[in-house]
Amino acid sequence: METVVQKISRSPITNKEYTLPETTDDKAGIDRFLSLHPGKKVIVVQGLGFVGSVMGLVVANALTEEYAVIGIDLPSPASYWKICSINEGVFPVLASDPKITLYYENARKKKNYYATYDPYVYTRADVVVVDINLDVKKSASSTAGAGDYSVDLGPFKKAIESIGNNCKEDILVLVETTVPPGTSEKVVKPILQDCLEKRGLPTGKLMVGHSYERVMPGPKYIDSIQNFYRVFAGTDEKSTDAVEKFLRTVIRTDEYPLTRLGNTNATEMAKVLENSFRAMNIAFMVEWSRFAEEAGVDIYEVVNAIRMRPTHRNIMLPGLGVGGYCLTKDPLLASWAKMNLFGSTERLHQSEKGVHINDKMPLYAFEYLQSQYSGSLEGKKALLLGVSYLNDVGDTRYTPVEGFYDQLEIEGAVITLHDPHVLYWEEKDIWVNQDLDKILEQEYDLIAITTGHKDYRDNPALIKKLLQQPASFIYDTIGVLTNEEIKALAEKHTVKVIGRGDL
Amino acid sequence: METVVQKISRSPITNKEYTLPETTDDKAGIDRFLSLHPGKKVIVVQGLGFVGSVMGLVVANALTEEYAVIGIDLPSPASYWKICSINEGVFPVLASDPKITLYYENARKKKNYYATYDPYVYTRADVVVVDINLDVKKSASSTAGAGDYSVDLGPFKKAIESIGNNCKEDILVLVETTVPPGTSEKVVKPILQDCLEKRGLPTGKLMVGHSYERVMPGPKYIDSIQNFYRVFAGTDEKSTDAVEKFLRTVIRTDEYPLTRLGNTNATEMAKVLENSFRAMNIAFMVEWSRFAEEAGVDIYEVVNAIRMRPTHRNIMLPGLGVGGYCLTKDPLLASWAKMNLFGSTERLHQSEKGVHINDKMPLYAFEYLQSQYSGSLEGKKALLLGVSYLNDVGDTRYTPVEGFYDQLEIEGAVITLHDPHVLYWEEKDIWVNQDLDKILEQEYDLIAITTGHKDYRDNPALIKKLLQQPASFIYDTIGVLTNEEIKALAEKHTVKVIGRGDL
Repeated sequence: METVVQKISRSPITNKEYTLPETTDDKAGIDRFLSLHPGKKVIVVQGLGFVGSVMGLVVANALTEEYAVIGIDLPSPASYWKICSINEGVFPVLASDPKITLYYENARKKKNYYATYDPYVYTRADVVVVDINLDVKKSASSTAGAGDYSVDLGPFKKAIESIGNNCKEDILVLVETTVPPGTSEKVVKPILQDCLEKRGLPTGKLMVGHSYERVMPGPKYIDSIQNFYRVFAGTDEKSTDAVEKFLRTVIRTDEYPLTRLGNTNATEMAKVLENSFRAMNIAFMVEWSRFAEEAGVDIYEVVNAIRMRPTHRNIMLPGLGVGGYCLTKDPLLASWAKMNLFGSTERLHQSEKGVHINDKMPLYAFEYLQSQYSGSLEGKKALLLGVSYLNDVGDTRYTPVEGFYDQLEIEGAVITLHDPHVLYWEEKDIWVNQDLDKILEQEYDLIAITTGHKDYRDNPALIKKLLQQPASFIYDTIGVLTNEEIKALAEKHTVKVIGRGDL
Repeated sequence: METVVQKISRSPITNKEYTLPETTDDKAGIDRFLSLHPGKKVIVVQGLGFVGSVMGLVVANALTEEYAVIGIDLPSPASYWKICSINEGVFPVLASDPKITLYYENARKKKNYYATYDPYVYTRADVVVVDINLDVKKSASSTAGAGDYSVDLGPFKKAIESIGNNCKEDILVLVETTVPPGTSEKVVKPILQDCLEKRGLPTGKLMVGHSYERVMPGPKYIDSIQNFYRVFAGTDEKSTDAVEKFLRTVIRTDEYPLTRLGNTNATEMAKVLENSFRAMNIAFMVEWSRFAEEAGVDIYEVVNAIRMRPTHRNIMLPGLGVGGYCLTKDPLLASWAKMNLFGSTERLHQSEKGVHINDKMPLYAFEYLQSQYSGSLEGKKALLLGVSYLNDVGDTRYTPVEGFYDQLEIEGAVITLHDPHVLYWEEKDIWVNQDLDKILEQEYDLIAITTGHKDYRDNPALIKKLLQQPASFIYDTIGVLTNEEIKALAEKHTVKVIGRGDL
């Protein structure tokens, strides 16, 4: 670990390096940009991550109004390159959605999307859309299902303060971040009021609202913002009205009607409840997968039969585990809020339990491998097909492949990685292979399918390649192999599938 | 409690009393019936409860074949009247489905549905459809969520033996009962083989299959059998084929295609997994309802907002609890099977927990009432609107209203019951009022809506009547009241709704 403060920020897209600025002064840049857009409302998007950078793009391509859009992030090694990249003409997010390029080119043409690191920008904002992260810190033992975690609101509060210390008195602050329920009312609004008061400004015109996003990086990245059922509320009537008015200009509300809820606690709860429902239903299948393995049942055919009923369509399939930024933490945010913002003495036990079970899934998957694989894995050549946590997307945030990879490494296996959507596994600092044919020219003792990418599904060429391998152990952790494929492979290899007993 | 063996069986529909037969001999009756149907296949339905009696009706009205149908049950006080009733022209099930009458009249006309208590009937059967109950016995503490339970296969095994001791060697035994996964292969088939062997018969032609029903008493009773996606399997190929052939003659498989699974463990698992999914998703909402109450959130508007997403459509609304014959026990059957039929050392913890949470729901509902109701309930007049566990149906089996009722009674409240669909609450031996106007002429301290019947929903006359009551406590445990209704009622009464904080 480096302790010296890094002075550069490197773009993983262009590999270009940027020296961090000495001060946060970008007043000239901001003023120059805004002078191009007189009379337009200024929308500031706080946070240029997976959500904010693309939200900025959508606002710059608003449906019924012309906005001047400024994205702001910290001039840190992790974020500064994004700021430079947006201003230089390279969008800082790689995505298979062609609309990203289209929207970005359009914004370049209209010159209406600028990025900065100077909080001065808030003095000029009519609306600030908050898209920064709010993380849960899990203890090291948590991946083993022990379940200790903590929520530190510190960085989030600081970001809100930087708005309050600069903004106009009649600002609309629209929080899109997934926050512990209660945050808009009990944290954001009081901080902003406090800041305004300290600056000698009245607080009566301040507006605060919450509307959660459901951004899905991938082929429908833009649509996941613009063509989506938005749920929203404000901390008072005028805030709610202002949020609605703003959302109507950027979201396709004719086809995807807005849902207005009674208060921000409700919208904040809706988001974490949605994700807790999902996380818990994934966790639910873990024990049933084990049961299916014991009973010689193919859980996939069982689940598909059950899904015929509309009332049971949301039942999940088993897998390697849960990844991504939301399902892995949102139930914990909720439970934390219940205790810490509303003074309850009871956690959301079941929802927390869901996260803990899911955190353990890669370990379960590994244990099942160990129970089926004869002999030691030490020195064995292992190929993992898939690094991303999600099919057909290159997103490695909290990917369950990591836990599985770590276990293999502990046991001394020699691991090769393939993922058509991941060039570089940031969290592990590993480069990933893209050429499936080429890596299959080498021989492996173990080949595990660890992401359900299209490339591994219904791919006769892959099966043919696998059949050319020497007898090895093929482990489908996602259930992408069909019965026919399993039958074919089983003539040469040992084939095991999570949730499928030997039939 | 009576210890003397009852010699009569009384029909709750006609009140007619039948003296139990001295012997089980009904050979003459069976032979006479079958002599009317030469050349027809004989289908015996074992068990004349909510499922079997109507399954018999559906088979007697099969789509593509003419069958001779005989229902069989025990000549016991609880069942003998059903046998007599079917033969006398009164169908033993009260239901709002007009098809029941239609199908029964048609069967009467064709004289192809007979009922008996004589196991001799199995000697004449081509197919036996098993529709008897298989119960889970919960310990007394279980309703408080302690979770002790046991499964006694004894009566079920005995019923299978009575088939095996009489049947032809090439019988098809089709189990529709919800059984612990593994039962067809590990219990039913071995018992039947054993019986045949003892009778000196070969076992090679025996056929055993499983296909679970999803019978829903109510306005679509018949459709819930005939127009439904059936899942099926047999213990071997020829059994599976025979089950399929039979189902095709009675189920509308053109519109509701059959799903053939790999083995009977899989079909048996599908049913209990379906119900566990449902039960767990109900349980999941319990903690979130509490959170909503604490946070001043209306969980109904939150859930409705979440349901806009197809991936989240199966999220449940909160309520008083879970009733009926399936969700209250099926997850336990599954967990029991995992341990006892497949020798696993791990229960299905999460699914069991779901049942235990649901079992506690009426108690939660009562505790919430106590926390909101000022003063003692002793001597207070309480009106419960709804006794059935299900909307618009008169089914009191394991209704959660019972737990709530019991708590009120323990506290000394004077309870009046209303349910438009329940005349007589069998399990409690209480007659129930039907006339809503009339019972509301009396005054109550507490009025609780305990079932979501149509009669209590969007009913301005009911609201008007409630407003004529003296100031009382109105407790909506199901969320049937709209915001407007709550607002109107709150001007006079205290109104509390489960899952709705004070907004």
